[in-house]
Amino acid sequence: MPSKIDPRLIRGFRDFLPAQAIQRRGIIDKVRQIYESFGFQPLETPVLEYADILTGKYGEESDTLLYRFRDKGNRDVAMRYDLTVPFSRVIAMYPQLPKPFKRYQVAPVWRAEKTQKGRYREFYQFDADIAGSESMLADAEIVCLIFTIMNQLGIKNFVIDINNRKVLNGVVSYAGLAQTESKRVFQAIDKLAKIGPEGVKAELLKTGLTTEVANKIMAFTAISGNNRELLINLGLMFANVAAGSEGIQELSQVLDCLAAMGVDETRVRIKTSIARGLDYYTGTVFETTLLDKPEFGSVFSGGRYDELIGLFTGKNMPAVGASVGVDRLFAAMEELELLSEAASVSQVLVTVFPENPGVSLKAARMLRDAGINAEVYLGDAERKNELRKQLRYANQQNIPIVVIIFPEKADQGMTIIRKMSDGTQIEVPLDKLATETQNILKER
Amino acid sequence: MPSKIDPRLIRGFRDFLPAQAIQRRGIIDKVRQIYESFGFQPLETPVLEYADILTGKYGEESDTLLYRFRDKGNRDVAMRYDLTVPFSRVIAMYPQLPKPFKRYQVAPVWRAEKTQKGRYREFYQFDADIAGSESMLADAEIVCLIFTIMNQLGIKNFVIDINNRKVLNGVVSYAGLAQTESKRVFQAIDKLAKIGPEGVKAELLKTGLTTEVANKIMAFTAISGNNRELLINLGLMFANVAAGSEGIQELSQVLDCLAAMGVDETRVRIKTSIARGLDYYTGTVFETTLLDKPEFGSVFSGGRYDELIGLFTGKNMPAVGASVGVDRLFAAMEELELLSEAASVSQVLVTVFPENPGVSLKAARMLRDAGINAEVYLGDAERKNELRKQLRYANQQNIPIVVIIFPEKADQGMTIIRKMSDGTQIEVPLDKLATETQNILKER
Repeated sequence: MPSKIDPRLIRGFRDFLPAQAIQRRGIIDKVRQIYESFGFQPLETPVLEYADILTGKYGEESDTLLYRFRDKGNRDVAMRYDLTVPFSRVIAMYPQLPKPFKRYQVAPVWRAEKTQKGRYREFYQFDADIAGSESMLADAEIVCLIFTIMNQLGIKNFVIDINNRKVLNGVVSYAGLAQTESKRVFQAIDKLAKIGPEGVKAELLKTGLTTEVANKIMAFTAISGNNRELLINLGLMFANVAAGSEGIQELSQVLDCLAAMGVDETRVRIKTSIARGLDYYTGTVFETTLLDKPEFGSVFSGGRYDELIGLFTGKNMPAVGASVGVDRLFAAMEELELLSEAASVSQVLVTVFPENPGVSLKAARMLRDAGINAEVYLGDAERKNELRKQLRYANQQNIPIVVIIFPEKADQGMTIIRKMSDGTQIEVPLDKLATETQNILKER
Repeated sequence: MPSKIDPRLIRGFRDFLPAQAIQRRGIIDKVRQIYESFGFQPLETPVLEYADILTGKYGEESDTLLYRFRDKGNRDVAMRYDLTVPFSRVIAMYPQLPKPFKRYQVAPVWRAEKTQKGRYREFYQFDADIAGSESMLADAEIVCLIFTIMNQLGIKNFVIDINNRKVLNGVVSYAGLAQTESKRVFQAIDKLAKIGPEGVKAELLKTGLTTEVANKIMAFTAISGNNRELLINLGLMFANVAAGSEGIQELSQVLDCLAAMGVDETRVRIKTSIARGLDYYTGTVFETTLLDKPEFGSVFSGGRYDELIGLFTGKNMPAVGASVGVDRLFAAMEELELLSEAASVSQVLVTVFPENPGVSLKAARMLRDAGINAEVYLGDAERKNELRKQLRYANQQNIPIVVIIFPEKADQGMTIIRKMSDGTQIEVPLDKLATETQNILKER
């Protein structure tokens, strides 16, 4: 045998063993069902894309985080960084897709980041996007989707913070700056929750803005009140700022649609400081915080990106979407004890004794034909302690029922059903096995 | 706007648009259900592995096909080439997993191959494996799994060819060669179906074997008959060849178990020429051919690899498994017309008119609450030709039912349900909408 290879994972990459994989799939299936109930259709794209498709779409800093390399054909390729840019590439490549086009995709993405607790280099996103609709109904539908998912996952205490990039563009104009200056302004404002107004002001002055300009921006961040009050006060501030007014109108339309959709208005909060990091957003932006676990950051975020598809077609097409951070959501739900207990996929273990495996195999088949997940014991059991070993296996695997096929009884067609929870056993003939097992499974 | 980026795919990589993604998911869900009915549990592993985990496990030629690169930490990493080696790495890394351990995994793998019709660089495998059982019951279970899947997918005309690497090792000994010579012998024998006995003999002589040795090997390949006859005749040939006898006994045990499992014996055929390409197989090997579409090659193959896990632990552990070639299977089923017609995930489109979107949003919510997938029209409809545009969208998307909410009728709480198949319409009050829609969906 050659020298042993150390079995290990690259830092920031993970295995999901069955207990966790089953729980994750439970969440993913639930989200998928809700996406489909809104008419989003599945789409799949490759892991690798030509690098030029991905670079320059996320922002300079993000580009350094791409897993990028030359393939054997010397192509400059990269692993996908998110699902939004590949979606935009798809919309551009297949003009025959009917519009508006709504799709969901659940898949891993890769970012060569510094790893830390809860931050991975390979992680899952679960996106829903709409291309070809400029209606604020689309933005509202995405927010309604988030609201529906949170409710159905049993998350009670959350808030969806919503803003509009046009409002942020508005404050840049209002402060007398060119739009090219917007990035440093957004970055400073985005830190409001973290460093407070004094901190933001210091940040703005540090980037070289005058005190007068900084004060105007601070006046904007100081506007407060409930959603309607905020919109009125922002409207006054932006009376002569076209971009800002447009942003306010859009926010107002989104709120109206959400009300018509029956979304609980206390769950949606206009928050003028959020900008979202990615470069491609142009209108509505939002993020979702779990109020009991704010340290997980946003578990569901996104926005409108009306210019991204145009980079591939030369002609802009409106688009809006959101992404669930599956890993954050899962971790938060684990801490909130919202995950169902780890279960086994097997409902029944059928014992096997070397003297008479045939009856066991037949029993397993009968159970499966009745729609029961039944596995036969495949370990090597010696006669002496064999049953104990097989019961221990069922225990380790959380299998709730063991069907014991003793060779001597099996010849007379008799089997035993054992409930692992309390060790009770009943004896049933083979032809009643499936029905009786189904009855016991229903009881649970 | 910056200069346009060409939206394109890397050769050998694919997008799956909704119609195809839905059909593929249908097959994957069915296979998953069958895997789970046998007690296989889900497991997920990363796309990237340290390169030394993957290299040297598949064979020299295969290693050149790895997508391998240096990451930003200068690690030598590669994208997974199959799911078997990562599974073996997992078994080695987590000794606490109960044995026997049965898992399934469905995921893409990457091979930098020359592309051609039906051969991709990114493709999906769907594997089921058992670690920790040396019983031939495990090998039989994997074959039974294939049999069950083929049946439940509606594939009538298929054959599972089965062999054992020990039988092939037996012929190497029988011919008087050292086991180090086995590779060239296997490679020649493997071509029997393609180039015939004369071709195989020529190939063997070309590699430098004597005529006497080549004749002995040809005598082996000439043994024919049904499964039982083959085993008897091979038994006679291998009377003094330990490895060969063991292989025959194992094949015989697998056949016995398959009979007890109720597998139709005409579907399983011992074929002494199959070797399977990968280096890691040690015992049972099998492949599955669609007799109506043999040109697709094997759609389901695998075998026993008792020494692979040992490369990571220093101690061998028995293991056996199989892999569905999802892409081949899908392509073959498409040609055999076994795929259900492309459907939309949306069951209902709810029309939206700008004068009164509120009722539409409410109707959509009522339908979703009743478990119906309902989307609202998000396109921009002008009053004049709006309904036609919305009906055309439903048509393009294969949505079977349109709920028409005319603003003037909506005020009186009346809606119209239109069946797209024949254009018939009924008028129902809003509070009966969900029930009536469900009735129509049930009719279909």
